[in-house]
Amino acid sequence: MENKFAKRTHLVESSETREILKVTERPEIISFAGGLPAPELFPVEHLQNACAAVLKEAGESALQYSTTEGFLPLRRVIFQRMSRIGINTNLKNVLVTSGSQQAIDLCGRLFIDGGDTIICLSPTYLAAINAFKTYNAKFVEVDMDDEGMIMEELEKKLIENPNTKFIYTIPDFQNPTGRTLKLERRKKMVELASQYNVLIVEDNPYGAIRFLGDEFPPVKHFDTEGRVIYISTFSKILTPGLRLGWICADEGFIEKYVAFKQAADLHTDSFAQRMTAKYLELYDLEEHIHKIKSVYKERCTVMLSCLEEFFPKRLSYSKPEGGLFIWVELPENVSAEHIFSEGLKNNVACVPGTLFFPNRTSRNALRLNYSNMSKEKIIEGIKLLGEVLHRELQKETTFLDSKLTVN
Amino acid sequence: MENKFAKRTHLVESSETREILKVTERPEIISFAGGLPAPELFPVEHLQNACAAVLKEAGESALQYSTTEGFLPLRRVIFQRMSRIGINTNLKNVLVTSGSQQAIDLCGRLFIDGGDTIICLSPTYLAAINAFKTYNAKFVEVDMDDEGMIMEELEKKLIENPNTKFIYTIPDFQNPTGRTLKLERRKKMVELASQYNVLIVEDNPYGAIRFLGDEFPPVKHFDTEGRVIYISTFSKILTPGLRLGWICADEGFIEKYVAFKQAADLHTDSFAQRMTAKYLELYDLEEHIHKIKSVYKERCTVMLSCLEEFFPKRLSYSKPEGGLFIWVELPENVSAEHIFSEGLKNNVACVPGTLFFPNRTSRNALRLNYSNMSKEKIIEGIKLLGEVLHRELQKETTFLDSKLTVN
Repeated sequence: MENKFAKRTHLVESSETREILKVTERPEIISFAGGLPAPELFPVEHLQNACAAVLKEAGESALQYSTTEGFLPLRRVIFQRMSRIGINTNLKNVLVTSGSQQAIDLCGRLFIDGGDTIICLSPTYLAAINAFKTYNAKFVEVDMDDEGMIMEELEKKLIENPNTKFIYTIPDFQNPTGRTLKLERRKKMVELASQYNVLIVEDNPYGAIRFLGDEFPPVKHFDTEGRVIYISTFSKILTPGLRLGWICADEGFIEKYVAFKQAADLHTDSFAQRMTAKYLELYDLEEHIHKIKSVYKERCTVMLSCLEEFFPKRLSYSKPEGGLFIWVELPENVSAEHIFSEGLKNNVACVPGTLFFPNRTSRNALRLNYSNMSKEKIIEGIKLLGEVLHRELQKETTFLDSKLTVN
Repeated sequence: MENKFAKRTHLVESSETREILKVTERPEIISFAGGLPAPELFPVEHLQNACAAVLKEAGESALQYSTTEGFLPLRRVIFQRMSRIGINTNLKNVLVTSGSQQAIDLCGRLFIDGGDTIICLSPTYLAAINAFKTYNAKFVEVDMDDEGMIMEELEKKLIENPNTKFIYTIPDFQNPTGRTLKLERRKKMVELASQYNVLIVEDNPYGAIRFLGDEFPPVKHFDTEGRVIYISTFSKILTPGLRLGWICADEGFIEKYVAFKQAADLHTDSFAQRMTAKYLELYDLEEHIHKIKSVYKERCTVMLSCLEEFFPKRLSYSKPEGGLFIWVELPENVSAEHIFSEGLKNNVACVPGTLFFPNRTSRNALRLNYSNMSKEKIIEGIKLLGEVLHRELQKETTFLDSKLTVN
């Protein structure tokens, strides 16, 4: 029956993300692999109160079909959040999605014909790569430094790829590197998009989780032409299980997004939308985010000092000011997959960096998540991983030495 | 910026379903338009208990990311339901989806290349047409009678269209006609699918809502080759707002569905899955379905007797034994859209049949929903719609008379 599959099925790889998530489920593993928020911070009791209130006040509506655009009071809160971070918008620009993953997927549906180019950071978010791949997109990767995407490189790629549909960017505490696009580059990115007439998909799930340094306005703040599509989610600031994300974009785009979303799943869970709106009405989300930030700051700080203490000195790594991830760069001849497997044997999990390069152009990095493990587990796990790295880097040196001897 | 859209955006029409749902929201309207279940039957209090239990027992897990395949205890219940209705299956054949709409959409993703043929009933479910259209499917319509799709016609179309990927069928109380595919034809459909090497997508949201006559096994019951993909949902037997559907299919298909679902939305709302599983553990779903059936039976009976009393005698209509809809056939020269508009002016809504013909080949029918209105509203609404029909059919006769006079 396999001969019945559409051609696009060949574009979908056996899913690495799923395998990674499965690894994190084994209880004996210290996992820095997933991108999971700290579940012990979920406001379970407050959400329980919100649930009870919704079912009491509007149970029938909360459990009935609803409109594709999303629950109005929730859209209103999202719109207010957008305004607060410097995005000039109105209610008609906001669509609730089934997690920001659906928002990403809908960008593929709206804009990508087979063979179209997406320009993205090298490396970039794995599940966005997988979603865009199903539309047969061509990925052009742009190099980054500590201040994010390098604009000279971006311009070069824009010139070389006139069939580019959009630039895909995660400006704040990027997944997987944890790096942030600096202010002047945000402005410059919008200028270049305008000059070369491409769109920007700004995927911003982590922006609110800044625990150090000064906030930057989102890329969309600099957009005067409706060229930037802004995507975010409640997954990192509240809970991911309810699958609530949103798109903020020009009305002409939103109309098309709505039509495609309706074909995809009619609408997002009405009850999840209403219980979240009720939570936001009853409680102070900012206070909750403040709590998340202070815990993540502590975990990040602990992980960074453990890297300093337990990892081989020649490795370099990012020093995030927010978000969930640290990116560790390995020597060129060390395979991240090998380190990943060796780590697993020692009950510690990370993600091999290879997965984040859409064209598989690099393999010598690891992504470490610090949000989902306690301080104690972080110390224990980084120590274990450090031992693996010392051993494997030692072998590599021996290997190089032996090669030198032979030649 | 419109020039950035993918070609497929031209395939999406301004969404009629959404407009229909919007009409149903105006409080002064007696609406037979939507496909909404009766919200007063939702087990709100029981679901509230289920919510509270889930958040108390496993709040953190219920609000965290989870696996794409779905929550295991829920998949287990689905698998048991499948076995009970005569589908020989196991856990690996079951994938939870974000409503059955997502299951339908994923069938497009998995099987349809631009220009491929889908064979479906004439008429068929609107939102399936819209989903498949986004994959640039070609629709070949097969005629039906009171016993469902006519198998001789189906075979003719299979011969004429060798690039057919699948037959899309709603065997029980079809949307929009309310008609049921008879037993022998179910067997025959599977035989023909095998003979001409095509798949069958069996969309079965209403099968459990049979309030008259004998149950038939699903089409998939006769499938010995893994050729039938069975889709269903909790929307009609519990609540639609939580967006929980499922696919039951061969393992080789499920693997691909999982990969595409992950790209589409990572996974279905964990909390909705767990609260539904908990509800199913604590309460008797069959008892609840029994309640739904007795209410729908009464509403259907009332609507049918009102049609008998208030509609012009020359109109014919289906007499469903379950499900949510009655299909009214109009004389050939009467436009359903016109009746729809005239109905709205009189505060009564139905759906013009035109929308359910993928190739817009017919226009003289109306779909009436009886599940979402009280007996009193049904009587009042059908009376009003009857008046509109008497008036408009009178005009048509006058119009034909005058044409006769002129010629």
